[in-house]
Amino acid sequence: MTRQESEQGRRRVLERAVYGPSSSPGNRKFVELFNSSPLRLEMGGSLSSVVVAYETWGSLNSDGSNAVLVLHALTGDSHAAGPAESGHPTPGWWNHQIGPGKAIDTDKYFVVCPNVLGGCQGTTGPSSNIPGTSRAYGSQFPEITIRDQVVVDLELSKALGIGRWTGIVGGSMGGMRALEMAIMAPKLVDRMLILAATAAASAEQIALCSIQIETIMSDPLFFEGDYYGHGDGLGPVVGMAIARKLAMYSYRSELEFQSRFGRKLQSGGDANGIGNFAIESYLENHAVKLNERFDPNSYVVLSKAMNTHDVARGRASLAEVLSSISVKTFIAGVDSDRLYPLWQQNQLAELIPTTELFTIIHSDFGHDAFLIEADQVAKFISRALA
Amino acid sequence: MTRQESEQGRRRVLERAVYGPSSSPGNRKFVELFNSSPLRLEMGGSLSSVVVAYETWGSLNSDGSNAVLVLHALTGDSHAAGPAESGHPTPGWWNHQIGPGKAIDTDKYFVVCPNVLGGCQGTTGPSSNIPGTSRAYGSQFPEITIRDQVVVDLELSKALGIGRWTGIVGGSMGGMRALEMAIMAPKLVDRMLILAATAAASAEQIALCSIQIETIMSDPLFFEGDYYGHGDGLGPVVGMAIARKLAMYSYRSELEFQSRFGRKLQSGGDANGIGNFAIESYLENHAVKLNERFDPNSYVVLSKAMNTHDVARGRASLAEVLSSISVKTFIAGVDSDRLYPLWQQNQLAELIPTTELFTIIHSDFGHDAFLIEADQVAKFISRALA
Repeated sequence: MTRQESEQGRRRVLERAVYGPSSSPGNRKFVELFNSSPLRLEMGGSLSSVVVAYETWGSLNSDGSNAVLVLHALTGDSHAAGPAESGHPTPGWWNHQIGPGKAIDTDKYFVVCPNVLGGCQGTTGPSSNIPGTSRAYGSQFPEITIRDQVVVDLELSKALGIGRWTGIVGGSMGGMRALEMAIMAPKLVDRMLILAATAAASAEQIALCSIQIETIMSDPLFFEGDYYGHGDGLGPVVGMAIARKLAMYSYRSELEFQSRFGRKLQSGGDANGIGNFAIESYLENHAVKLNERFDPNSYVVLSKAMNTHDVARGRASLAEVLSSISVKTFIAGVDSDRLYPLWQQNQLAELIPTTELFTIIHSDFGHDAFLIEADQVAKFISRALA
Repeated sequence: MTRQESEQGRRRVLERAVYGPSSSPGNRKFVELFNSSPLRLEMGGSLSSVVVAYETWGSLNSDGSNAVLVLHALTGDSHAAGPAESGHPTPGWWNHQIGPGKAIDTDKYFVVCPNVLGGCQGTTGPSSNIPGTSRAYGSQFPEITIRDQVVVDLELSKALGIGRWTGIVGGSMGGMRALEMAIMAPKLVDRMLILAATAAASAEQIALCSIQIETIMSDPLFFEGDYYGHGDGLGPVVGMAIARKLAMYSYRSELEFQSRFGRKLQSGGDANGIGNFAIESYLENHAVKLNERFDPNSYVVLSKAMNTHDVARGRASLAEVLSSISVKTFIAGVDSDRLYPLWQQNQLAELIPTTELFTIIHSDFGHDAFLIEADQVAKFISRALA
């Protein structure tokens, strides 16, 4: 039983797993930045040339005053809105928020969503080729921080001719970027909307990210990060699957799991052994799906960036840094979020003097509520952009 | 950096890891059960001969009315009380509860604590030799349930000449055993004390156990469970380490982690990469320590037993089964326990008609409070045994 389960599980994951960006761009545009002078990174490395994949919706008005920057979470990408298309197997992750007449109204706003530095959906990351070679960075990809990501976002702003964003909006890791951008370039930002994020990763968030990083790095197919083209070329899909399962646990709530799954068995299962409970099947499905679209090295690089996230680092005390923020601020948290608990958004709201709104989203969906609770999130965004 | 961390981590764990019982018994006694007729297991397997390691404190009185059975949690063992000794590198896990004049007063009670079936500290488990051979069970060890463990506990009771326990006491997995024993053999039990346990594993508990099982089984040194003497013989210590880290997360509370560690760096660390935050060092220490004393196969077997735990299985509805309990019942839960949350102890207290006490332990230590909050737990036990 044990042997069979273990082998079948691995084969099943391996069979389905294909990560990395599709060669077909869909709605994506690409811009190459830092090709005249390299991007110097906070932790010491550098990148000569950074390609950024981004999507836009709506049109920039003549005085450039209607631009909204949308920043995605860990495993998100530039496809915030629009239908499933080539290279994007699912509709936009905020499809219900972005569009004509929606909260982020594309009849009114010019909306930009870039894939993050270190990601794997078109923007330079560990699975990108080292410039001038046909070899992926892999283990050679430097350590990056949220602040490095913002430096790229700022360069993108310049390239797009946007002198000021009327709004920057981000949830989870996207919220960290928005917050850092408001600190690093306050003149570029009229208002920021932060959902389910934090001023600094907590001990618990570090613990959970660290365990996930370890499951990926200890997979024997990780090859120290240089798994592209090594072995079967699929990389650490088992470690990545386990990381995703733990992440899904942290993104949802106990109440949801209990009311939705309880001790239900998946079809064909019995009460013996593992792999037979509906909750296990749910986690397995999420793991398989992520392996089909996400690069484990990107997962590691971005998880590390979230762990080092701390607006206070090298500046002043956390309270002093937040108190110095001058950008109009709108904060939302989820009452059942155990990963980015309400105290973190409360801390932002209390310490940022320009906080105009602190909304609590009521939900059983935990952290993921910022992606799921369409009506409450829309109401928050609409009020903030009004 | 990545390669080095990964290799160093593995080497560090491998160097220190020695699991399995010491050959030296310390205070332990051993009894062989089921040697005339095999133990038939609930899920279909069987075991011919079960050795049980147990410890006792105090003396059985002449009418056998002063026996208390203490049942340990997942990684516990028979060494509930007493100093560190050969084979037991630390003092008893409930040393502050069991002893002369303590809540479980060994001047008054004859206290017995057996190592659980499937464990690795003297009682038959996957690391034990198959009877008549010098080969460990490994992958051949059958699937067991909490009810199978109770069948062994009942046979041990007979062997010790105990016709009735004045009290059975268990926390976490030990609480599951106590509950099942009260259902399976009500005439043998005068009262049961259950701490931080549940009537049936929840979706969330299944999820967390399942992820931990998977980290162990996907370690390439697991060898399908037959790692004894294979490769370097140390088995899946990396997978086990990750499982333990996740378990420690679930055993403690966010508040404790944040106030104790926050974003502190471990000595010599900097803010770059993994392995440098104090919370990570804390988890690593726990992982290393468990690898030094616990068998990964036992961890898998016992985790599966906890996942199948459900007093309703094959009987009636959960409410009907709990309502039929006739043993005097004393329940304690911890307000910060996220693994066995209060609603589960509340469910027990509400549905068991013979509940005499429901105590909430106030603590920041989460699930582990039943091991840590000595005074509150002592008060609960004293009231229950009075």
